[in-house]
Amino acid sequence: MTGVTDVPSGAPARIETPRAGDPRLARLSLNQRTTAQWSLPEALDGARAAGLESIGLWREPVADVGLEKAAQLVAASGLRVSSLCRGGFFTAADAGAREAAHTDNLAAIDEAVTLGTDVLVLVPGGLPGGSRDLPGARARAAEAIARLAPYAGERGVRLGIEPMHPIFAADRGVVSSLRQALDIAEEHPAEQVGVVVDTYHLWWEPGVEEQIARAGERIVAYQVCDWITPVPADNLLGRGMMGDGHVDFAAFTRAVAATGYAGDVEVEIFNADVWAQAGEDVVATMARRYAELVEPYL
Amino acid sequence: MTGVTDVPSGAPARIETPRAGDPRLARLSLNQRTTAQWSLPEALDGARAAGLESIGLWREPVADVGLEKAAQLVAASGLRVSSLCRGGFFTAADAGAREAAHTDNLAAIDEAVTLGTDVLVLVPGGLPGGSRDLPGARARAAEAIARLAPYAGERGVRLGIEPMHPIFAADRGVVSSLRQALDIAEEHPAEQVGVVVDTYHLWWEPGVEEQIARAGERIVAYQVCDWITPVPADNLLGRGMMGDGHVDFAAFTRAVAATGYAGDVEVEIFNADVWAQAGEDVVATMARRYAELVEPYL
Repeated sequence: MTGVTDVPSGAPARIETPRAGDPRLARLSLNQRTTAQWSLPEALDGARAAGLESIGLWREPVADVGLEKAAQLVAASGLRVSSLCRGGFFTAADAGAREAAHTDNLAAIDEAVTLGTDVLVLVPGGLPGGSRDLPGARARAAEAIARLAPYAGERGVRLGIEPMHPIFAADRGVVSSLRQALDIAEEHPAEQVGVVVDTYHLWWEPGVEEQIARAGERIVAYQVCDWITPVPADNLLGRGMMGDGHVDFAAFTRAVAATGYAGDVEVEIFNADVWAQAGEDVVATMARRYAELVEPYL
Repeated sequence: MTGVTDVPSGAPARIETPRAGDPRLARLSLNQRTTAQWSLPEALDGARAAGLESIGLWREPVADVGLEKAAQLVAASGLRVSSLCRGGFFTAADAGAREAAHTDNLAAIDEAVTLGTDVLVLVPGGLPGGSRDLPGARARAAEAIARLAPYAGERGVRLGIEPMHPIFAADRGVVSSLRQALDIAEEHPAEQVGVVVDTYHLWWEPGVEEQIARAGERIVAYQVCDWITPVPADNLLGRGMMGDGHVDFAAFTRAVAATGYAGDVEVEIFNADVWAQAGEDVVATMARRYAELVEPYL
């Protein structure tokens, strides 16, 4: 219809690409990982060129240009920062390693403030090497969050616990469902600890719509991408462009919107095929798919 | 210590292989899929040679020799049949396909009776091609089980709903947690519908020990194997020998035993590296790992 093709699928674009100023783009945020082929300055320029108003930052590419410089670039871009990814990795068996993680998370909170966002995404961490004590690792994650929460509150940053798909329970994230994330978050004031709702991680969860309703004001970030099959050999890179997989974005987005969530919607895609494309094409496909599959249900 | 090595890891055996008559083998069942390199007659012979008293059968290798012939071979072997795998695949969007699935499941119940087992394992099925309606697929699975349950009861066969790891929610099993499986099972008499507790599928589930306690007499099969990382490229083959991965078999087995479960314990491993070994070595490793990691907690 438009003569344009989507990436990485190569399918014909189903709608025109929304342009700068299109109200459908008002809440769309480019998570930096979606265009990992871009440096921070390139991502800022690319997001602005596509008419976006928001970006989700990662600590590593921020560190690549230096925190203060990054903050200047972000401020100059005029973009909002929807979140900073990521703190966490709390589950070490060794007390010294946990202390180091705490210190690093304090720094991440400060970085969020410097960059101008009030959301720090937390990836809990996996089982320590050789350990099979999943309840123990989960307890350590909850304890670390409890220790971190007051400082986040002092700095005006909300911690977002990100439940991760159970495929990652061993090696990345021991918080495996929204229900479990809320059990942890609800021990703390909502202005300190919330949850990240990511369609990729949660689409399979029985009763997830009830859990989203339960989350209410605790949703600090809404991240979208698709669950695609077959799952790639590198499972970490199994995220797909919205519409290329199995997720019902309408149902998910309606449930999130029903909580009153008024924040940005981040598109976060880890996918080698996406990263092999030109960043401009990725952002354009993302904007079309978002405008078609997500935004109408907000 | 014994000069023997485990398969497929190649690690030295940590204990002597239990021999025929060892009481530790009394409840160990060889699920046929663990030695997929063996035909049914080979599996029956291999299990007996290793001193096992039980086997878990699959419909396809049974069909390869013919049902009546298979039943004769099983009876002659003196082995118990701990379960028949598998019925299910209930989620088709097309009513005709669902009717065919129902008919096939009636046949599977009859096959279970003929083979001398009272347990039919049900794999619910995934999303139909192109569908993103996960709640709909789940509802169809529950409806199909409700339709099947009375006939199972008439024939003295218990249906075992197998919750599957969420990695399979799109393409194989839309029942993703023990909690969800029990929500379905509890709509029916316990002598008709129960659940399969499989460590590989459930090890990540928050609160799984409480769900196992809730299951109580509804546990119709306890299957063990390990969750290994990295997950292989073919995710279906990512099951490991007990002890090679991240599962805490002591905690899981204690929880199952606490329900009063007195049935067999099936070792069910889908793994190309395991299938590349001699069946005798697989069964011997299985018996050692089971005697070390599982049986003491029954």
